[in-house]
Amino acid sequence: MNYATMRPSDVRALIRAGNIAVPTTGMCDGYAQANLVSLPKELAYDFLLFAQRNPRSCPLLEVSDVGSRELHDIASNVDIARDISRYRIYENGVMAGEYTDVSGFWRDDLVSFLIGCSFSFEGELLQADIPVRQIEEHCNVPMYNTNIPCKSAGVFHGNMVVSMRPIPHDLVAKAVLVTGAMPKVHGAPVQIGNPEQIGITDLEHPDYGDMVTIRDGEVPVFWPCGVTPQAVIMSSKPEFCITHSPGHMFITDVKNVNLKY
Amino acid sequence: MNYATMRPSDVRALIRAGNIAVPTTGMCDGYAQANLVSLPKELAYDFLLFAQRNPRSCPLLEVSDVGSRELHDIASNVDIARDISRYRIYENGVMAGEYTDVSGFWRDDLVSFLIGCSFSFEGELLQADIPVRQIEEHCNVPMYNTNIPCKSAGVFHGNMVVSMRPIPHDLVAKAVLVTGAMPKVHGAPVQIGNPEQIGITDLEHPDYGDMVTIRDGEVPVFWPCGVTPQAVIMSSKPEFCITHSPGHMFITDVKNVNLKY
Repeated sequence: MNYATMRPSDVRALIRAGNIAVPTTGMCDGYAQANLVSLPKELAYDFLLFAQRNPRSCPLLEVSDVGSRELHDIASNVDIARDISRYRIYENGVMAGEYTDVSGFWRDDLVSFLIGCSFSFEGELLQADIPVRQIEEHCNVPMYNTNIPCKSAGVFHGNMVVSMRPIPHDLVAKAVLVTGAMPKVHGAPVQIGNPEQIGITDLEHPDYGDMVTIRDGEVPVFWPCGVTPQAVIMSSKPEFCITHSPGHMFITDVKNVNLKY
Repeated sequence: MNYATMRPSDVRALIRAGNIAVPTTGMCDGYAQANLVSLPKELAYDFLLFAQRNPRSCPLLEVSDVGSRELHDIASNVDIARDISRYRIYENGVMAGEYTDVSGFWRDDLVSFLIGCSFSFEGELLQADIPVRQIEEHCNVPMYNTNIPCKSAGVFHGNMVVSMRPIPHDLVAKAVLVTGAMPKVHGAPVQIGNPEQIGITDLEHPDYGDMVTIRDGEVPVFWPCGVTPQAVIMSSKPEFCITHSPGHMFITDVKNVNLKY
């Protein structure tokens, strides 16, 4: 089965039927994937405001109606409780379990936030002949906690998490322009070449994901990361929260190229 | 007094002291101005979601904390109840009065939404040698109701309002590029040259503002307008709402050029 060339609706149908258990990296070439955060309505205002105040790390692609498992903008015929291949449920900030279907846990007060994912701009980088090392090395992107404070909103506060990609020195400006044109999926880098300036003291040991090779002449470049909202939510310990499991994203019907406009 | 070259903080101080009663058009050259909508917290989630779903007409520059008359991002040392030269108070969708100071009406449950304004991209158009007719003719921009539905959110629903500027036919593409680079202040046009396609049947008689001259060889170009949220709010009849009075905008400390990034 070549998931890369399949339509998003077909892959979502396979996921809903329980026939795909693996991460979604590389599936449905050219289509955007999204992070999921589902929270009780009681906390939804604070989280929506947090996203409004921190659009670099929390670019919202869609917010569901209260209690609804459907979406309207970024995909159709969706059951958000079944169309992701692996979910996490958190209770009071502690992971209570991983599931391939959370319809049995669904609550009528849940609001789902779909947040842009850097998978989208990686496709654009590759098309522009800029290497993406963790794809070459078949591992997860390295991610780091930083000292860059997010703007607080109600109960939600915390620091930005960033992802790192080593970029050949003569392609750094091009990488800024390519990703800067896609603000709905994190946009331009927040730091270029000086990790210690944002509180990263041990580049070899990322806080999340895997380390990748940095070759001679390459510069570590740091982008706001979709792990930020999850880290912030976990530190705020909401009584109940559903997220996707890292790497198991929601596949949208939106082409990456359309996220530029 | 040459308000055009003054600093935003100085003009806001004059406004707060009651020394400026006129519209803010042309004040503090190069700095962004903003629309104001202040609503009770009870309605704030629906309005924040409405803005998230309709970023073309409701681009949020900042959302205040509940009850706070201060801002943090787009200006400092602000009293949002006194730093606009004219306000409107609406009760159940009906205008109850205009005031130069609404501190006596302030409520601890109000949330203030500051929304981008096309004044920002007009400066960019002029710098790019694209004429802005209503500035040349010293009148208000013509605005029209359309048949373009906004995406609903809770109690808020309605159609987009657009502003129109006649653009010389050979500068239309340039005007699209200039404004398209500024999505935080409405961005690119929604319609070029075919008003009837968006439900505008009488171009000579705008629904708001003043008609301007359309010369031979010019094309009417339509942009999403900051009147949209006010029209939507008024049709939704919240029990209490404070807005700026049209033309009397909040002057921010943010340079227009910085709204591009």
